[in-house]
Amino acid sequence: MAKVTSETWMARALVLARRGLYTTDPNPRVGCVLVKNRRKVGEGWHRKAGEAHAEVNALREAGDAARGATAYVTLEPCSHQGRTGPCAVALIDAGVKKVVVAMQDPNPLVAGRGIARLREAGIEVEVGLLEDQARALNPGFIARMSRQRPFVRLKMAMSLDARTAMASGESQWITGPSARTEVQRLRARSSAIMTGVESIIFDNSRLTVRAEQLDLEQADSISQRQPLRVVVDTRLRMPLAAACLREPGRTLIATCAAESPRRRKLEEAGAEVLVLGCDINGRVDLAALLTYLAREESCNEVLLETGATLAGSMLDAELIDEMHLFVAPTLLGGEARPLFALPGLERMAQQRPLQIDDIRAVGRDWRIIARPQRIADASPGPITSPTRD
Amino acid sequence: MAKVTSETWMARALVLARRGLYTTDPNPRVGCVLVKNRRKVGEGWHRKAGEAHAEVNALREAGDAARGATAYVTLEPCSHQGRTGPCAVALIDAGVKKVVVAMQDPNPLVAGRGIARLREAGIEVEVGLLEDQARALNPGFIARMSRQRPFVRLKMAMSLDARTAMASGESQWITGPSARTEVQRLRARSSAIMTGVESIIFDNSRLTVRAEQLDLEQADSISQRQPLRVVVDTRLRMPLAAACLREPGRTLIATCAAESPRRRKLEEAGAEVLVLGCDINGRVDLAALLTYLAREESCNEVLLETGATLAGSMLDAELIDEMHLFVAPTLLGGEARPLFALPGLERMAQQRPLQIDDIRAVGRDWRIIARPQRIADASPGPITSPTRD
Repeated sequence: MAKVTSETWMARALVLARRGLYTTDPNPRVGCVLVKNRRKVGEGWHRKAGEAHAEVNALREAGDAARGATAYVTLEPCSHQGRTGPCAVALIDAGVKKVVVAMQDPNPLVAGRGIARLREAGIEVEVGLLEDQARALNPGFIARMSRQRPFVRLKMAMSLDARTAMASGESQWITGPSARTEVQRLRARSSAIMTGVESIIFDNSRLTVRAEQLDLEQADSISQRQPLRVVVDTRLRMPLAAACLREPGRTLIATCAAESPRRRKLEEAGAEVLVLGCDINGRVDLAALLTYLAREESCNEVLLETGATLAGSMLDAELIDEMHLFVAPTLLGGEARPLFALPGLERMAQQRPLQIDDIRAVGRDWRIIARPQRIADASPGPITSPTRD
Repeated sequence: MAKVTSETWMARALVLARRGLYTTDPNPRVGCVLVKNRRKVGEGWHRKAGEAHAEVNALREAGDAARGATAYVTLEPCSHQGRTGPCAVALIDAGVKKVVVAMQDPNPLVAGRGIARLREAGIEVEVGLLEDQARALNPGFIARMSRQRPFVRLKMAMSLDARTAMASGESQWITGPSARTEVQRLRARSSAIMTGVESIIFDNSRLTVRAEQLDLEQADSISQRQPLRVVVDTRLRMPLAAACLREPGRTLIATCAAESPRRRKLEEAGAEVLVLGCDINGRVDLAALLTYLAREESCNEVLLETGATLAGSMLDAELIDEMHLFVAPTLLGGEARPLFALPGLERMAQQRPLQIDDIRAVGRDWRIIARPQRIADASPGPITSPTRD
């Protein structure tokens, strides 16, 4: 039998945490394993906001066996009185001897408090085991807590010559069913799906999670939660008959058009209208919209599904954290619609470098995961000369 | 020790054949292994046109030990008196007992003659072992012999949004040094490098094999042979000062402009001018050009390095056999130059499907190998109704 190390237990806790991928929103995905005498005595994960946290579920399973056990938790146990009581206290009360934490709470205002509380109670605490993996589970929660911004994931379906639709707008279907299932899962894990009004006008997208397309065991319960639909619509051109307005869940229209007579009509049709300031191009201030989504709507992960114009604006505003490009083995030609409009990009020196993290087959298509390289990522930081004497 | 099978010996013969990848042109790459009592008694490969064939080199190494041996050859031994005498006869004279051939001669007019000659001499012959691998070694020789056409490989360097240059034409360098080394090797294995006159006008490409960029042991001797440079130039706009005219090797300009006064000047500058018919768009008949290259220039593999217009015309004429797309992790935006101009492609139903054969990292870039799917590949063939009674 292979040696069982602390990494093994934390890896198990991460697997448990991942079970909440589609359901914990707006809470983070968290898992916990309790180990005593090299044997697991309990495990749990956080399933859904309002229900018990991972630690409490694991303690329940362990019962009296928790006394003297080591707890492996993927996120620092909370120290505040939330809907379910502070987990740090629950661990103390259960007589746990040691707690291994993969990562601190990403909220800089409370980070370390849970750990401090455990230590004050005489419990040994280790921090940082498999931290990268733990962070990868909750990119949105971390972005919201640490940057007051959601984690924005751009999804695009394109041909090998990087075209997203014919010039006419026709685009169904560039990619195959497996890629579309992946997109449904990206929607299901997101707090919000963001698009431009042009996508609504041309495609009449519903922007919903469809249980039958998820190909997941818990598909029905997952699709009970529909991500917030966010339509960027500077001049309030949203059609009153848009299909997404008749779907379950909320539709938020972000606009600069405060005084438009269409506002009341759209509200009557079921939309919520958010008036924001304009950027220097007279379009919705995208950074302000994302801040709003984080602060007021508790959005962790936002899935951006849109065309070249909004995708380009988001890229240029450095608001895209990750791209999932689904590439179909086909060519659509030079007249078809481009991937990114990047006005003003005229010289090679202005190119937008990316970091490619993963390329793999998804059915007959390929999925490329890439991250925009910020200038700060690509070049060394400022050199501060040490004082010499 | 692993069991040594006939596949093992043929695989060795394929490895030997591959040593001639950059040097046998216009001959095929061929390898041969002689085995007696389960031991290798000789091996050889064809190095260069005019020098000994693989079988003869292996027989030389084996000497008397060839008597009673089994020969593994990657291509049917020749039966005709070429520059080096028929290999079938050499094998017979050496007393070889059995010959295993990976594939028949691809020339339908002579296929099977070498095998028949061996069998007439009482030698047992097996055909088809590792045939796919053997065919993959010589796609150009096979295309030329069986279709009177070279194998055309399109190479393009592009950004992730499938742009090959800025609108201004600036393109140095989209891809990194590893990708450029791969391109040099593609050139070195090709009989010809084909481009459009626009690439010469804008980039002043030299279209040469540069020893220092090959990163191969035999780089100096490989770069002694410069592939034929072929410039598609309908109206004979080729600049007299083009850098490629001053490089070692030949430059062939394919044009429709029979009467142009520039012809003599270009010939004086070192170019050869080939006048061909026009296609229905008034441009050089590309199919006729490729037939010429196969029949008159013995071109096996042609590397197409060009822009969107000629690449699109070649694709639409179904003259591209394989694409090597080098994808850099960067974005160049919607104003930059597209991969393929495909005029008339307006509906999704007209898309050009591809088969993706390979995707892998090449330095910081990615290489995608794809093949255009002919209509005949994608749909079942015509159904001929059998006569019923």
